[in-house]
Amino acid sequence: MSSARSAASTAPALLLFADSAHNADQLYFGRVHVPDAFISFALGGKKYAVVNALEFARVKRDSDFDVVLPLEPYADAAFGKYSHLGRLSPAETIAVIAAEFRVRHFRVPEDFPASLYARLTQLHGLRLDPANGPFFPEREIKTAREAAALREGNRAAALGIAAAERALRAATVRAGKLFLDGRPLTSERLKTAIEIACLEAGAFSLDTIAAGGDQACDPHEAGHGPLRAGELIVVDVFPRVQKTGYHGDMTRTFLKGRASDARRALVAAVREAQLAALKAIRAGVNGQVVHGAVNTVFAARGYETKRTAKGATGFFHGTGHGLGLAVHEAPRVSTVDYVLKKGSVVTVEPGLYYPGLGGCRIEDVVQVTATRPKMLSDFHYEWEIE
Amino acid sequence: MSSARSAASTAPALLLFADSAHNADQLYFGRVHVPDAFISFALGGKKYAVVNALEFARVKRDSDFDVVLPLEPYADAAFGKYSHLGRLSPAETIAVIAAEFRVRHFRVPEDFPASLYARLTQLHGLRLDPANGPFFPEREIKTAREAAALREGNRAAALGIAAAERALRAATVRAGKLFLDGRPLTSERLKTAIEIACLEAGAFSLDTIAAGGDQACDPHEAGHGPLRAGELIVVDVFPRVQKTGYHGDMTRTFLKGRASDARRALVAAVREAQLAALKAIRAGVNGQVVHGAVNTVFAARGYETKRTAKGATGFFHGTGHGLGLAVHEAPRVSTVDYVLKKGSVVTVEPGLYYPGLGGCRIEDVVQVTATRPKMLSDFHYEWEIE
Repeated sequence: MSSARSAASTAPALLLFADSAHNADQLYFGRVHVPDAFISFALGGKKYAVVNALEFARVKRDSDFDVVLPLEPYADAAFGKYSHLGRLSPAETIAVIAAEFRVRHFRVPEDFPASLYARLTQLHGLRLDPANGPFFPEREIKTAREAAALREGNRAAALGIAAAERALRAATVRAGKLFLDGRPLTSERLKTAIEIACLEAGAFSLDTIAAGGDQACDPHEAGHGPLRAGELIVVDVFPRVQKTGYHGDMTRTFLKGRASDARRALVAAVREAQLAALKAIRAGVNGQVVHGAVNTVFAARGYETKRTAKGATGFFHGTGHGLGLAVHEAPRVSTVDYVLKKGSVVTVEPGLYYPGLGGCRIEDVVQVTATRPKMLSDFHYEWEIE
Repeated sequence: MSSARSAASTAPALLLFADSAHNADQLYFGRVHVPDAFISFALGGKKYAVVNALEFARVKRDSDFDVVLPLEPYADAAFGKYSHLGRLSPAETIAVIAAEFRVRHFRVPEDFPASLYARLTQLHGLRLDPANGPFFPEREIKTAREAAALREGNRAAALGIAAAERALRAATVRAGKLFLDGRPLTSERLKTAIEIACLEAGAFSLDTIAAGGDQACDPHEAGHGPLRAGELIVVDVFPRVQKTGYHGDMTRTFLKGRASDARRALVAAVREAQLAALKAIRAGVNGQVVHGAVNTVFAARGYETKRTAKGATGFFHGTGHGLGLAVHEAPRVSTVDYVLKKGSVVTVEPGLYYPGLGGCRIEDVVQVTATRPKMLSDFHYEWEIE
């Protein structure tokens, strides 16, 4: 009994102030979608949320919070106690709550708002320790339920990529350009087709990429304008499943028409690099080793990476990143020193980019195990479309 | 010359660290979409961005930044100088940049990350002043170009609402439930139809609401399950235009079949309240006065507002909020003391909610002028659908 008590009093209290529509930690903590920022905290093994009347009933009903408190009495108390401070902020409400629960010290996430941090530490005498890295390190290891949610995300991504493939297959070529239903087939139209397919699968695909030719050499260029026959078209889809908040993340590279030998060699190298990475991934292996396996394949085939003032060519991004409630989260599979853990979920997405030739990236998602990784995404690798 | 110099040296330098996909201040500052957090700052009348190789060329080409600097040399310098600190964060890179530009003092936004704030002030001796309120107060006043972008957002919202209306019109009624194409017409199907219409108009509609019956009495309940004839269906759509980042925000309340007298009276009261609010809105008027006009209409018609432990009924949210790069931004039209300014853009969205009867909300968007507000949204008010 005394040990439980001491555990409760020594485990640092946690404090968050964020919405859960965008903030993955807040969603992970309470498992409920709240569009506006709200106060939540962990204390003595219990999870607390403080929400306004608009959210109260729904959060009480649907969330993982053990205790849901109405915001208004605390906000009123803060107003009564601190109106001499001038314009109030949620810091004053937090100060009232901290006093009621007799907490003087919280851990807060990296992205806790600096305005609240400054007021709480300087005006209200609280001690706040911001994380430098993940706030919930356990987010890195995915449960079976989370893996299923990520598989569902990749099912949506695959349906999006399938919609792009269908459009490319149905397209005709006139003077080198692609047409569909009598109009030019543009990156924008391809993205809309992908996004509709994802929506119908219950997921939002934001920032979808469908970039052809040299546009794809800039991995964050979403693509715009007419697509052309004979050029590589990178299609990267990372939808978020509405119900769960978990993501998929998949990339395929297509080409309408017949590919040049140089492009065939490029795509073959990327796929070989992906297979080499998949072979290297296992619990206990450093992400650097996996990234190195990709570099080895590219080097052996003579694909150089160059970084110049105008930009980079070759392979100049990471091999992969963790995937979960955020599109980018721990771990990283790159030049960074990071040992992969069992149960973590990562993308495997080598790519090569050379202006003139175009870009190619192939991306799947796996869960790390003690042996070979478990695939959480499923889509074929045929890429030349007649 | 000396006055220009002194202006440059006395205007506080600004510092941001955020992505511009979610963070409206960062998007407003640089007018370029960057999915990952990056450093930006304002100094001596110039806007600077520090971005990695993936973003460099695109940000240089497409953004409003006067100077775009490559991240890597600064990150390398930070690594060389601060590796004794253990796990580094972007704070060390910011410290290197601040030293190079000889700045010791920045204003930062409310939501600047506390982890960086703590390291920069405690380890690196910088002075940071977090805003308590808007970081760019000028965001509240919309230029003609921004008003056009908001009109475009509302055009997308109207297309979404029109898609919902079409589905309700095409639906048939069996045993009180709505059917479309042989399957139950659910909130989920209505939302998907809305979101597809918005996508086709170039906008993302996240968190779409299509809630029928008592579900609509919880304004943040998105709606789920089969829709029924004779019940009020609140359809609230706030899409974000992909190209510009500006939003629309519109609500209409529909009913399939014939409405009861009580529901007709409810809808008439909400529309009358909206007209009263629109009549009251003008530059120099306090938002409280506009909100009061809504309350007066509801009180005159006998609609009471009650707040209980189980939740609230009647009219218990604000009359409106600013709309721009964020769905909720300054100003507020509510119980808060806030004088409306010429050029600001607000929603006007009174509502009434009574379990048993259902909810009704009607929402449009206007720009505040010296006289009557300019409508930025356009959709009819017929709501009973045969």
